[in-house]
Amino acid sequence: MRVLIMLNGQPPRRELLESVVAGAEVLIGADAGAVRLREAGWRIDYVVGDFDSVPAELLQSLPAESVVHDPGQDDTDLEKALRFAVTRWSRPQVVVVGTTGDRIDHVLGNVCGAVRYADKAFIRFVEDHSITYFAHRQLRFDAPVGATVSLLPLGEVEGIRTEGLKWALHGETLALGTRGVSNVVERSPVVIEWRSGHLVVVRLLGEGEMFTW
Amino acid sequence: MRVLIMLNGQPPRRELLESVVAGAEVLIGADAGAVRLREAGWRIDYVVGDFDSVPAELLQSLPAESVVHDPGQDDTDLEKALRFAVTRWSRPQVVVVGTTGDRIDHVLGNVCGAVRYADKAFIRFVEDHSITYFAHRQLRFDAPVGATVSLLPLGEVEGIRTEGLKWALHGETLALGTRGVSNVVERSPVVIEWRSGHLVVVRLLGEGEMFTW
Repeated sequence: MRVLIMLNGQPPRRELLESVVAGAEVLIGADAGAVRLREAGWRIDYVVGDFDSVPAELLQSLPAESVVHDPGQDDTDLEKALRFAVTRWSRPQVVVVGTTGDRIDHVLGNVCGAVRYADKAFIRFVEDHSITYFAHRQLRFDAPVGATVSLLPLGEVEGIRTEGLKWALHGETLALGTRGVSNVVERSPVVIEWRSGHLVVVRLLGEGEMFTW
Repeated sequence: MRVLIMLNGQPPRRELLESVVAGAEVLIGADAGAVRLREAGWRIDYVVGDFDSVPAELLQSLPAESVVHDPGQDDTDLEKALRFAVTRWSRPQVVVVGTTGDRIDHVLGNVCGAVRYADKAFIRFVEDHSITYFAHRQLRFDAPVGATVSLLPLGEVEGIRTEGLKWALHGETLALGTRGVSNVVERSPVVIEWRSGHLVVVRLLGEGEMFTW
C-alpha cells in the first residue's frame, strides 16, 4: 500500500508534492497535517492524532472510520500515523511530507520516529531538495547518475555494502558522525545493504526532479 | 574559552544572536559563515574551511594567522571549525549558529558532527526557538521553570539520571527514537547524567529569551 502522511511542517513545492500525491493510494493527515491536506484541496482518507490542533468542523466533515483518535503523549504525530499505517497494512510504502521547518527538535524527533518504524514500513521523507530513506538493512532506489547521496549512521552501523555509488563500501562499519557524506551515484539502481544498526540515507534531488513511488 | 562558530545556514534573530556574540571571546566563520559575520558587521577572528564559497577579498582583508585553510573532503565546515577550536583551546565552550535551514542532510550532518566532538568541547546550537546541547556524559544548565526539554538518544544511551525535570529518569536506558520528549523543567539548574552513548538535549526557548554563556 502506498501511503502519504502529511505533517504540519513545511511541505515541498506544489509540483513535487503533486507528484507524490498522484501515486498515493491513501492520504493521511497527522493531526494538523489534515488541515494542510484540506487547504491544498486533497481528500483526507484518515486523520490520526490527539486533535489538539484540528478544528472540530474538519473532524465532523469526515466519516467516523476516517477519524483515528490517539491521545497518547509518548509519541509524536508522525509516530501515531506510522503506527496506524503499519497496523492497518502489511509493510506499507510510506512517504512523509511536511517534515522540516525551523524547529530542530521536530526534525530530530521525526527522524528518530521514522527510524523506529523502518523495520515495519519503507519510509521516505520528501522535501524540496532531498529524499530521505529509512529502510531495514537493505535499500534500493533509482537515481540520476551524478546525484549526491549521503549515508548517515545513527549509532554504529555494521557491514555496509554499496552498489552504484562512486565511493563503494565493502562491508565496513561506520560510527555515528563518521559520515558517508556526499557520495555520488555512478549507476542506477543504487543498492545499500547493512548487517546491523540504523542507517539513514539522504539523496539530493535535481532541479525540477519529480517523485516516483 | 568561549567560541562562537557561525555557519552559513539561517542564523537566529538579531537580538538573540547579539546576546551570543556579546559573551563570545572568539568569533569563527566556518567557510561562508565568515561572509555572514562580515555582513552583520562583526569581526572575524578566524575563518576555517576549504574556502569554496568565500570571496578572495574577504580572505585578503584578514591577517594571515586568521585564515585557516582546511581542504579536507571528509568532514563538514562545522567539523573543520570544531577541530580547529579543540586543537587550539582545551575543552572550549562552543556555540554554533546558522545550523538550520531547509536541508535535512545539513541539519543531520551538523548534529552528527557536533556529537563527534562532544567529548572535547561543550557544544550548543542556538536557534530561534531552541538551544541544543551536546555534552559528554554530564550536562548542567539553567532554564526557566516550565521550559520544555527533550532528550534525544542517538543510538542506545545507558544509565540516564536527571535532576530538575518533571519526569525524572533514575538510571534508565533509552534507545534511539524512544524519546524523552517534551519533559518540563521543575527547578533549575537541570542536571542530566548518563553512563554511555550519545545523548542530544534540546531545550525550547521562551518568547524573547536571550542567551547566557
